Amino acid sequence: MPHRLIAIIGQATPDEALEQLAREAGRLLAAAGVSLITGGLGGVMAAASEGFKQCPTRAGVVIGILPSSCPSDANPHVDIALATGIGEARNAIIASAADAFIAIGRGYGTLSEIGLAMKLGKKVVALRSWPIDDRVPCVESAAQAVAAVLKK
Amino acid sequence: MPHRLIAIIGQATPDEALEQLAREAGRLLAAAGVSLITGGLGGVMAAASEGFKQCPTRAGVVIGILPSSCPSDANPHVDIALATGIGEARNAIIASAADAFIAIGRGYGTLSEIGLAMKLGKKVVALRSWPIDDRVPCVESAAQAVAAVLKK
Amino acid sequence: MPHRLIAIIGQATPDEALEQLAREAGRLLAAAGVSLITGGLGGVMAAASEGFKQCPTRAGVVIGILPSSCPSDANPHVDIALATGIGEARNAIIASAADAFIAIGRGYGTLSEIGLAMKLGKKVVALRSWPIDDRVPCVESAAQAVAAVLKK
Amino acid sequence: MPHRLIAIIGQATPDEALEQLAREAGRLLAAAGVSLITGGLGGVMAAASEGFKQCPTRAGVVIGILPSSCPSDANPHVDIALATGIGEARNAIIASAADAFIAIGRGYGTLSEIGLAMKLGKKVVALRSWPIDDRVPCVESAAQAVAAVLKK
Repeated sequence: MPHRLIAIIGQATPDEALEQLAREAGRLLAAAGVSLITGGLGGVMAAASEGFKQCPTRAGVVIGILPSSCPSDANPHVDIALATGIGEARNAIIASAADAFIAIGRGYGTLSEIGLAMKLGKKVVALRSWPIDDRVPCVESAAQAVAAVLKK
Repeated sequence: MPHRLIAIIGQATPDEALEQLAREAGRLLAAAGVSLITGGLGGVMAAASEGFKQCPTRAGVVIGILPSSCPSDANPHVDIALATGIGEARNAIIASAADAFIAIGRGYGTLSEIGLAMKLGKKVVALRSWPIDDRVPCVESAAQAVAAVLKK
Repeated sequence: MPHRLIAIIGQATPDEALEQLAREAGRLLAAAGVSLITGGLGGVMAAASEGFKQCPTRAGVVIGILPSSCPSDANPHVDIALATGIGEARNAIIASAADAFIAIGRGYGTLSEIGLAMKLGKKVVALRSWPIDDRVPCVESAAQAVAAVLKK
Repeated sequence: MPHRLIAIIGQATPDEALEQLAREAGRLLAAAGVSLITGGLGGVMAAASEGFKQCPTRAGVVIGILPSSCPSDANPHVDIALATGIGEARNAIIASAADAFIAIGRGYGTLSEIGLAMKLGKKVVALRSWPIDDRVPCVESAAQAVAAVLKK
């Protein structure tokens, strides 16, 4: 069976509180045995990946779907750096590939990811992110976010 | 000089009021001499394209950037049907290719398009669309929307 | 009806003989009333587009599908500069969008385009290009290439 | 450090001899400690992945970059099934993401992949595949192919 893939999406320049939420969400996903997909860069993406790698019982891996064609653009916590070379269109790859999404913070790239994922009928949870509508539940803690995306 | 490309983005299943706004925005863009980009399908996309083609003094063309690999999926008002074959990732192509965007209505695909365009630093105007933030002005009429996107 | 789209694909740094073939092929396609798709850059792409625009009876337009997100990368003969922002993946868009292909010269990008177009079941003609197999006819003149791609 | 990514590319309907070569190449790559990228489907892709998973000392993982948006299209040996949803354009993602390529057999998709990888300056080895030019070495055994792609 392939790994179950959960995405954490969020901006490259978050404040420290958002990074802390991302780190905690990454750690909880790792403990749940899934693999993590992010956009592979810094900020929320790096913090989530760092949290994931801090979990000693993790079975999954961290996959970074980079916009550039340069694998070294990945943050240091990425296991599989996929340098797609397709720019912002890589958001559509993440939306298609992941089962469910935790959106953290309010970047425009995050907004596009939420829209694409919802368009494709995926589950999205907003953790201090854009208020969209009642089909995208807003939560306040990493534990709530992880519980929501893991629920089948 | 290549044509100036303005996008009208919006859902495939709008109500009649939104379609009327799209038709009017399309006609005004045609009268201004630019070319129109849409996602090539029905609803807002077809209405905007129909309005564009109704303008007798148009100099530009209607370009439909389709998700499928089948040109016949285009609505009948499209001049250039680009059947990309890349699914929802075609939204990123539209975001990259157009100069400015009129978003009509509140589909999730439209939301993703707004996010991608803003991420790329493009001008976006919301015509009865998602309220995003004060960098995405909300307008009520097609004339206001067209005036806003055409302003350099 | 949308325009019929025929692609001329070929390298950015051809010799003068290949450029002359591209110019002639572009002119003949224009005279046949179709629209032209290229990769939008220089060399074969620019020469084909220049030839197309030299035809006084043309009804179609020249569409350049650019790898970058910068419309000004297009050669000066492009009418519709689609700055996709997806890099070499834009070759797949061209392969999906065009009806038939004239490959000129032996660049690696041209090779990839031939492979993608054949994979999608499109008609490809090789004009002093890669010898592939007997499903990709090799021709020596622009007139032969254009006749072959226009044959239904 | 992210995993080193080596791609095995080849057709979905090979003969048994090609499948055997793919299986052997996959096993040797696994033994070398790298991760494997394929297009995620059957034939050469499945055989290479199966060989990879048969190596008891493997440290890497098998990544399948699928054309569809459906992870269950992956062959049963894939660890990370990335359902991109972008169709044949996924070949460009593989070309961009992998360090080096072993091409097996003569499918058109394989041809496109060779062209894209060479265009991006990557190392490609042809194992009973298309004869391209002297920059794409032709080899006869899986061991030669793996040795060639692993050489820095």
